[in-house]
Amino acid sequence: MTNGYFEDVEVGDSQKAGPYSVSKEEIIQFAKQYDPRPFHIDEAAAARSVFGGLSASAAHTFAIFISLTNELQPPVRAIAGLGYDELRLPNAVRPGDELYLEAITLEKRESKSRPDSGVVRGQFRLRNQKGDTVLQCVGNGLVARRPDAKAST
Amino acid sequence: MTNGYFEDVEVGDSQKAGPYSVSKEEIIQFAKQYDPRPFHIDEAAAARSVFGGLSASAAHTFAIFISLTNELQPPVRAIAGLGYDELRLPNAVRPGDELYLEAITLEKRESKSRPDSGVVRGQFRLRNQKGDTVLQCVGNGLVARRPDAKAST
Repeated sequence: MTNGYFEDVEVGDSQKAGPYSVSKEEIIQFAKQYDPRPFHIDEAAAARSVFGGLSASAAHTFAIFISLTNELQPPVRAIAGLGYDELRLPNAVRPGDELYLEAITLEKRESKSRPDSGVVRGQFRLRNQKGDTVLQCVGNGLVARRPDAKAST
Repeated sequence: MTNGYFEDVEVGDSQKAGPYSVSKEEIIQFAKQYDPRPFHIDEAAAARSVFGGLSASAAHTFAIFISLTNELQPPVRAIAGLGYDELRLPNAVRPGDELYLEAITLEKRESKSRPDSGVVRGQFRLRNQKGDTVLQCVGNGLVARRPDAKAST
């Protein structure tokens, strides 16, 4: 049983979240505000494009990824994201998709600058209901250390 | 004078966009939907947190970055983003910030799989009104080739 502190995290641990259901309305609304390209906001234009239909903005897919990081089970006491590497979006997110996030811990180390937390590096993969990856990246985040561990150092 | 085709892009070129004005209401609304952590949605909780006040979700900052890529001047005929490397968010986005994007072309090469386009690699930096970087990354995108260049190959 884990309490989600840095001390509880082990390399190779996996966490899961989802599904997140993506509606056509949400794809269009998000893109109108942040990425108003025809293949994100106009069904007819999208059908004629190389995408062959509406697809979510990369910014929207990233927002859904961040949303699901808040729901990962078992939970980890993440304080802040430090950055993301090798972010790729190999397949488009489509209206009606159901998205699932998986996180696997790659590395952990104590923070040099923050004694109350540690740095955890993880591989994230967001997949649709067919198992196709729609977003993948390596993320680095700060995770809270157990209070008694901090007191003992 | 450039027409924004792959053939017109040169290593070292720079493009700019902005400002994008970030309101408190937009920060809270975005975070309520995609990243409902207290320091993104609750002013009192945010004031007590290590952030010392409301800050935008990383997903929101990324969405503003994508939004501004659509407005870069001079424009380039970008077809699709292929991915992002070394994405970092060194400073928080705050209510009232005015954000400016700068893109600098690092590399260009023809696409192996798509004769109608080329791959351009660029350094992106999103700064606030004080010049502090709030998001930086290296992005790879497909840019349309000039139609006559395609016909001549």
